[in-house]
Amino acid sequence: MADTGAIAVFNGVRQPFDLRDFPVPDPTPGALVIRMRMANVCGSDLHYWRGDTDLAARGFALPGTLGHEGTGEIVKLGACVTVDTAGQPLREGDRVVFSYFHPCMRCPTCLKGHTNACPVRQLDRMMPLDEWPYFRGTFADYFYLFPNHGLFRVPDQLSDEVVAGVNCALTQVVAGLDRAGQGFNETVVLQGAGGLGVYAAAAAKARGASLVIAIDGIPERLDLVRAFGADETVDMREFDTSEARVERVKELTDGLGADVTMELVGHPAVFAEGIAMTAPGGRYVEIGNVSVGREASFDPSSIVLKSIYILGVVHYRWRDLKNALAFVAQNVDRLPFDRVLSHTFPLGDINEAFERQNEGRITRSALVPGG
Amino acid sequence: MADTGAIAVFNGVRQPFDLRDFPVPDPTPGALVIRMRMANVCGSDLHYWRGDTDLAARGFALPGTLGHEGTGEIVKLGACVTVDTAGQPLREGDRVVFSYFHPCMRCPTCLKGHTNACPVRQLDRMMPLDEWPYFRGTFADYFYLFPNHGLFRVPDQLSDEVVAGVNCALTQVVAGLDRAGQGFNETVVLQGAGGLGVYAAAAAKARGASLVIAIDGIPERLDLVRAFGADETVDMREFDTSEARVERVKELTDGLGADVTMELVGHPAVFAEGIAMTAPGGRYVEIGNVSVGREASFDPSSIVLKSIYILGVVHYRWRDLKNALAFVAQNVDRLPFDRVLSHTFPLGDINEAFERQNEGRITRSALVPGG
Amino acid sequence: MADTGAIAVFNGVRQPFDLRDFPVPDPTPGALVIRMRMANVCGSDLHYWRGDTDLAARGFALPGTLGHEGTGEIVKLGACVTVDTAGQPLREGDRVVFSYFHPCMRCPTCLKGHTNACPVRQLDRMMPLDEWPYFRGTFADYFYLFPNHGLFRVPDQLSDEVVAGVNCALTQVVAGLDRAGQGFNETVVLQGAGGLGVYAAAAAKARGASLVIAIDGIPERLDLVRAFGADETVDMREFDTSEARVERVKELTDGLGADVTMELVGHPAVFAEGIAMTAPGGRYVEIGNVSVGREASFDPSSIVLKSIYILGVVHYRWRDLKNALAFVAQNVDRLPFDRVLSHTFPLGDINEAFERQNEGRITRSALVPGG
Amino acid sequence: MADTGAIAVFNGVRQPFDLRDFPVPDPTPGALVIRMRMANVCGSDLHYWRGDTDLAARGFALPGTLGHEGTGEIVKLGACVTVDTAGQPLREGDRVVFSYFHPCMRCPTCLKGHTNACPVRQLDRMMPLDEWPYFRGTFADYFYLFPNHGLFRVPDQLSDEVVAGVNCALTQVVAGLDRAGQGFNETVVLQGAGGLGVYAAAAAKARGASLVIAIDGIPERLDLVRAFGADETVDMREFDTSEARVERVKELTDGLGADVTMELVGHPAVFAEGIAMTAPGGRYVEIGNVSVGREASFDPSSIVLKSIYILGVVHYRWRDLKNALAFVAQNVDRLPFDRVLSHTFPLGDINEAFERQNEGRITRSALVPGG
Repeated sequence: MADTGAIAVFNGVRQPFDLRDFPVPDPTPGALVIRMRMANVCGSDLHYWRGDTDLAARGFALPGTLGHEGTGEIVKLGACVTVDTAGQPLREGDRVVFSYFHPCMRCPTCLKGHTNACPVRQLDRMMPLDEWPYFRGTFADYFYLFPNHGLFRVPDQLSDEVVAGVNCALTQVVAGLDRAGQGFNETVVLQGAGGLGVYAAAAAKARGASLVIAIDGIPERLDLVRAFGADETVDMREFDTSEARVERVKELTDGLGADVTMELVGHPAVFAEGIAMTAPGGRYVEIGNVSVGREASFDPSSIVLKSIYILGVVHYRWRDLKNALAFVAQNVDRLPFDRVLSHTFPLGDINEAFERQNEGRITRSALVPGG
Repeated sequence: MADTGAIAVFNGVRQPFDLRDFPVPDPTPGALVIRMRMANVCGSDLHYWRGDTDLAARGFALPGTLGHEGTGEIVKLGACVTVDTAGQPLREGDRVVFSYFHPCMRCPTCLKGHTNACPVRQLDRMMPLDEWPYFRGTFADYFYLFPNHGLFRVPDQLSDEVVAGVNCALTQVVAGLDRAGQGFNETVVLQGAGGLGVYAAAAAKARGASLVIAIDGIPERLDLVRAFGADETVDMREFDTSEARVERVKELTDGLGADVTMELVGHPAVFAEGIAMTAPGGRYVEIGNVSVGREASFDPSSIVLKSIYILGVVHYRWRDLKNALAFVAQNVDRLPFDRVLSHTFPLGDINEAFERQNEGRITRSALVPGG
Repeated sequence: MADTGAIAVFNGVRQPFDLRDFPVPDPTPGALVIRMRMANVCGSDLHYWRGDTDLAARGFALPGTLGHEGTGEIVKLGACVTVDTAGQPLREGDRVVFSYFHPCMRCPTCLKGHTNACPVRQLDRMMPLDEWPYFRGTFADYFYLFPNHGLFRVPDQLSDEVVAGVNCALTQVVAGLDRAGQGFNETVVLQGAGGLGVYAAAAAKARGASLVIAIDGIPERLDLVRAFGADETVDMREFDTSEARVERVKELTDGLGADVTMELVGHPAVFAEGIAMTAPGGRYVEIGNVSVGREASFDPSSIVLKSIYILGVVHYRWRDLKNALAFVAQNVDRLPFDRVLSHTFPLGDINEAFERQNEGRITRSALVPGG
Repeated sequence: MADTGAIAVFNGVRQPFDLRDFPVPDPTPGALVIRMRMANVCGSDLHYWRGDTDLAARGFALPGTLGHEGTGEIVKLGACVTVDTAGQPLREGDRVVFSYFHPCMRCPTCLKGHTNACPVRQLDRMMPLDEWPYFRGTFADYFYLFPNHGLFRVPDQLSDEVVAGVNCALTQVVAGLDRAGQGFNETVVLQGAGGLGVYAAAAAKARGASLVIAIDGIPERLDLVRAFGADETVDMREFDTSEARVERVKELTDGLGADVTMELVGHPAVFAEGIAMTAPGGRYVEIGNVSVGREASFDPSSIVLKSIYILGVVHYRWRDLKNALAFVAQNVDRLPFDRVLSHTFPLGDINEAFERQNEGRITRSALVPGG
């Protein structure tokens, strides 16, 4: 293993990244060092880069490092780390997927079982770039995994392309559907058919959804979400107003709306539209709106009079990550997981990757360190 | 029984009511005629009268009749009605509490178990005043109960004053806390200490809440909610900004916010404040905002990043009504149920009752037909 | 329509049935008369005929009538019956599936939501044979449906063979899996691959089970349950002791046992074996043991120390019946629903049907009135 | 702190304990050494001593050490231990309650959230007595707490007597009622009014039970359970058959039986009786039967036909322990927690304590090291 590795340094909103070398740290007991094999550009990375969320205002030191979705292989095991979170033996060289946040497991929020909402679960990502252990984002050659992360060994037969989206996008929608208790013979609407949406279509069908409707305006995405199991799509170029889309969803659901609607876009404007598409007694799963400081406007009587539940869902529990990885392994021959990543770039071309994904026609870019 | 009875006719927004006589109908099989003994002025009646909700725009025929919270005695039993919803024998003369809406029990929404959100549950209230069976609101001498309502006989030892608030305000918060699953050793914030709030304080303590905090700005209400079990109150005259109130709730909850926050005010503006008072992983129960067409603005990332669930809760299931009545019977000696009604008026003085309650210092007025 | 119809009269334990004619009744308001098209011999019918359950001791008048699983077409609609339980219009001639029990919807048990356990839900089946309306079992030309049954119109494209098992076996396991909350990536063991077992395999896979293991000793059943989606089978001829079967299930589940085990056999002896096959924190769904008076012996510490939940599940809610019918409609091209019925007999040959099914190699016999 | 401490050595079934000295260990990182202040004789200790459970057959090395319920003060903090499980600062000298088992948090069972059923949660109690760190039972001067236990600082105002029963008996029933979801206006039957039963009465009332019925045959226990909130008692001296007790419970519950029945006795024979006392749709919480190898006999159709759920509940989650301690703190002035311990003995008199509690008229003995 090299003594140093590169980090694609994030210099601020819409600034270019630049690659700088840092020493590869030795892990403390319980920690790990991972060599990244593939790191995806997730929608929230774009939000940060664009400034939709003002990271600096939230305490994030600049320059810093971004990236959290991806996979890598273990290069250094800290003391006491002998097994993954499922109890399977771990060795240097093993490929893994890992949670990119670490709940403290001790605070009142964790104690109540809401480890996904632990207030300090992401504090390590806020530290200045030149502070040990440096490698705190996946847009880099290495990633330092503090103790207490969920961590699962990846079966050999799964390619990097297939598992790179597991630890964020796929697990996130697996968690959202689990919290919503989406079940057998229910109807599901997906607002957005990007990375989250295509995975959600597959997971909802696997849980027994009778009808999955995906809404998007990009033809490639509508094609892909159908390949992942969506029964119907609503093309925003054809249904170009909120009223038209709500009307279309109702047509497809016997006038009722969906049992479960998922917000997977990240624009506050779709919130009220999504509520209007939800059936009486239904559930609205809010996942995409992670950018702080953007207001949604809606009529609260719309959730009272229809008795709708809204579930804000952030991050996940370790079992969700385990279930998501198992889902990929079981369905890799049936579902086009490799098509979610539309483009692959060497880590050194990160600026090109961001620019092109920002234009909106790329579902998901993947960065390959050393690639 | 008289052949005719008076209805306090609702003539439109902020118009005075006037009393008119109508023939008392004979019930069809499964239906009942009730002679009202006491009918309360609920917050939603005020919303309708003030025009916060535009009833006409929602299909409500004017002139019409209002009122739904209250109690009465059976004067005519339709064929096949021999027992109440708990299977207890019913006779003419029995005092009852009843659900003021009737789910169809047959539509997809009812089938899924969401009888409280049945789309047609209130259609009968929309009919023109001069259409049989006329008595469709409780601000009248009689009330016609269509088949399929929940209906429970009232124990003799409970006075009208004590049970008049059961079938709307008390049962509504009992249902809300049940949906939220509020449990043992949880903290609860009540936005509003009116009729809903005082009952909610009692019910939350009965379910094992370790701390109930009530927010209001009217001293009589703050006193009453303490008498119903609130451990702490936040006086809006002292904490006169949203930030100050959020700060105060956090102080009282070890910095976390409440496990369960209930919106019992009915102003869209309190929505975002309530979310801010809720702990990570907590639940926000939205009950008060029933007026259609008023917008709330909030940052959806606030529910994502804290993984908060919002439960829109309208109406209730019959077991909630049964539980609420049982709760009153068990606690009538311990809790000041008779203080919830601050003023009683003869039905003929309905206009004075509305004006005074509209001024805001009356917790709940009760109208007494023939009184 | 004929004025009279035949009933296959049940004369007592292991006695032959004989056909007798009775007048076809006129339905009261809310009721229906159905002409049976196909009636299956369910395992519980066999239990009654064999005397595993002493019907007479439970208040069932003899001679009487048996049968409850099947489908038919409406020949007389009572007053007020215009739609099915999903609100779809009903006309004479429509084919329907229906619940074979009717909860009162009014007792404390129904009020709590346990309509499937209503104590009086089957009282009508106890009445003497010569009491109006006579047709209270499906082993007859007609079936009288009292008011308050769940009732769904059958899509035209589904054959009688395909839907005949919906209203008992299929819906029963749909209900059981729903109560158990069986979910995504869970392992399921089925004790028994008869009618209940084959349907359960399909439903569990549709809910996202990662592994379904079916246990039986009859090769035809093991074949069929694989065709319905079981991933693994345990052949009791090969694994011929309880210990061997428990061991085999553990081998297939990483040593843990199943997340959900279902008892679908109806022998008390399999109870303890099933508990032993269940993972720590898992659920045991007890459906098959409906014969009163047969004792199971087990060590209660086995459920304490592994924190196992046991769910006794009888009958179902109407939404389960609706979901089951929808499941058939959606999967009729993919799953061999028509193979569940292995043999069809004219109603007049009911004695032969019972004898042969009692021998155990027939999965399900169907009786065809007039056939 | 002394260099050595005494352990009351368990030498085998119905053998006398003898005190032996062992060196006080230094804690590894994450671990703690506690000086015991009070250790209760729990029912399961009696089961082990009597041989109801054959510890040796289950892999427990003899001679060994027993005891798990109690409280103590920290004398040595391992590295990295700075706060308790609720995040409150910990110092040497702090009094604490602690979980007496430690789930691995990594195995499939823990991952699914069933940390209370982790298969290895009690392995450390099996080790030979002379193996470091020796102090693995609370019947000793010290207790060694391995990393990963739940641990909460005890408020100063609570006496040892009041908190000594928190970490086993009280938390166990708090956990059981939580799993059963016992709620507002439900009826509860307690089989047994020993330590578990008296706490269960208090907790059930605090969760809103409308009626708590306790069954026992010892007058002191019946008195105490009433003082803890039981509304009714069934004295086994008066109701001396299973049938009579079932009949009495039905009389008190409008013929239905209890919504929730709890088995808190630990005799297999009460299992079938408890099921018979449970309402249709009710839940049976099995806690007491922890002795392996004793058979219960029951009719499984009794849980099918009434759709009863049985919940085996062992141990608890850390939030249960936190909730239980908070419950004591909030109710210490209202409930006679100090009366649960009927007798206190110096640790050296452990043999007398066991003999007298074994006779059955002592609710709970407490051992005081150095006392």
